Amino acid sequence: MGNKRFVSEDVEFFKVGKTNFVLKVDTLVQSTDIPNQMSLQDAARKSVVACVSDFASKGVKPEFGLVSITIPKKLSDKKIKDIASGLGKASKEFGFKFLGGDTNEGKEIVIHVLLFGSTKKIILRKGAKTNDKIITTGPFGYSSAGLKILLEKKKASGKFSKKAKKSVFRPNPKLKFGVENAKFFSSSMDSSDGLATTLHEMVKQSKRQFTISKLPTNRDVLDFAKTNKIKPFDLVFHGGEEYEIVATISPKNLSKVKSNAKRQKISLFEIGKVSAGAGVVYKTGSKTIKIKNKGWLHFRS
Amino acid sequence: MGNKRFVSEDVEFFKVGKTNFVLKVDTLVQSTDIPNQMSLQDAARKSVVACVSDFASKGVKPEFGLVSITIPKKLSDKKIKDIASGLGKASKEFGFKFLGGDTNEGKEIVIHVLLFGSTKKIILRKGAKTNDKIITTGPFGYSSAGLKILLEKKKASGKFSKKAKKSVFRPNPKLKFGVENAKFFSSSMDSSDGLATTLHEMVKQSKRQFTISKLPTNRDVLDFAKTNKIKPFDLVFHGGEEYEIVATISPKNLSKVKSNAKRQKISLFEIGKVSAGAGVVYKTGSKTIKIKNKGWLHFRS
Repeated sequence: MGNKRFVSEDVEFFKVGKTNFVLKVDTLVQSTDIPNQMSLQDAARKSVVACVSDFASKGVKPEFGLVSITIPKKLSDKKIKDIASGLGKASKEFGFKFLGGDTNEGKEIVIHVLLFGSTKKIILRKGAKTNDKIITTGPFGYSSAGLKILLEKKKASGKFSKKAKKSVFRPNPKLKFGVENAKFFSSSMDSSDGLATTLHEMVKQSKRQFTISKLPTNRDVLDFAKTNKIKPFDLVFHGGEEYEIVATISPKNLSKVKSNAKRQKISLFEIGKVSAGAGVVYKTGSKTIKIKNKGWLHFRS
Repeated sequence: MGNKRFVSEDVEFFKVGKTNFVLKVDTLVQSTDIPNQMSLQDAARKSVVACVSDFASKGVKPEFGLVSITIPKKLSDKKIKDIASGLGKASKEFGFKFLGGDTNEGKEIVIHVLLFGSTKKIILRKGAKTNDKIITTGPFGYSSAGLKILLEKKKASGKFSKKAKKSVFRPNPKLKFGVENAKFFSSSMDSSDGLATTLHEMVKQSKRQFTISKLPTNRDVLDFAKTNKIKPFDLVFHGGEEYEIVATISPKNLSKVKSNAKRQKISLFEIGKVSAGAGVVYKTGSKTIKIKNKGWLHFRS
């Protein structure tokens, strides 16, 4: 066993022989991470999704999990069962097995998930090469639109509202796609801290510049932004809670990855390219603007 | 990777080739596990001790750790530093390295520690043989006396009070002893859920009877019990929070283990022996009584 890595990564890992053991912990706290409208089944699932999404971005299948649940003394049996059921279903959905865990008593619900797996090769946040293409595995903006609908009563059509809330309550990490395609990535990262934050971390570690020329989003997100006088740019880059993979890919591998995405019915967005330099810029027409490294704040009830 | 074990153990483990990977999570919750008089440095250390003690009982050295800390928004920088410092010092004390972790915001402090390591052979709770001797790596009763002094204002001399409170605030798991001697154990278990609970779990898994003929405790615990009209039997068997190893050892290995304990200045107690049958009994003079499988409750503020 040994660990020679001192930079920030989506997962923790350590090498034994030729195998990398991969671990990720995530903590979901009721007062900070669970909107009132969210079911405990979905909250429990989301605590798993947060880890699964990091595994997906590294192309590693989680194999085992441990869970610790802190619950208030007065929590009903029904609600405890909802948490257990959400966790159990999530482990089936993402194909790993919970080995065990513990329960504790506390003032609010805290769900703490640890997943682990193994891989021969691990794709890092570092490694983007000049001329690589930048992709995302899905559109951005739905989750922050969803939170704005839930918490700030922003206006939206019934159809859009449903879609946006679903992306908050039941995010869909692209595990199968990541496991299948990570071998084609020169670098990759989970996007759940927000797209701008993710791109900035990747350029910093790769010592390159990313030029974004296409917003990875859909027409209905732009319409929602317009109706509510929100800048689409902010929804897409500074929203957060999108559990997508952001990766850089050599141009020679792009068509293969695109056809794999199509087969899996994943909306792959090619959003820009890697060049020598530093920072993240957005190029629209003849205008080039800097994208700020501005994160997002946890939901607070 | 594979997991074929469905019985309760001190640690979780899974086999890769000939190596067992060993994991343990522990969650320390402010309102449930931290008495007011306890410093946050000691609380943080204790969250590590709870895992280390389980590793000790299995004879495995923890090599890496992950930590998740949930903290209230209003917690002072000083207190956050105390938690970090307590964790950092504990990792040095027990010789492992924290790989990383995360922090979260919540209503109260929750410290969640994961430790992992590896071993060729793992000693189980199951495996006690007829005629084996039963040992503990230290005396019982100090921790529950300490909690009674702290929470119920029980009477004690200054010297005893200090010793008893120290066993609550800074328990001393016998990691080095466990790592060195586990090869001589036929079965073993961490005792922190209480001695009676531990012995009952071991007999259940080994399908044997344990006959206890000596209380693993000291004169000053008996004096404290007498002064406060508490049964010494209850303090020793049903106290809990003693981070000791309870193990069974073939008579032929006992002198070796005893001399190892002496070299490490550990008070080894030989408390009884294993026989055919079931259950746990206490034999004092000509009287034999059943020891109930009665646990203990978490401290509640």
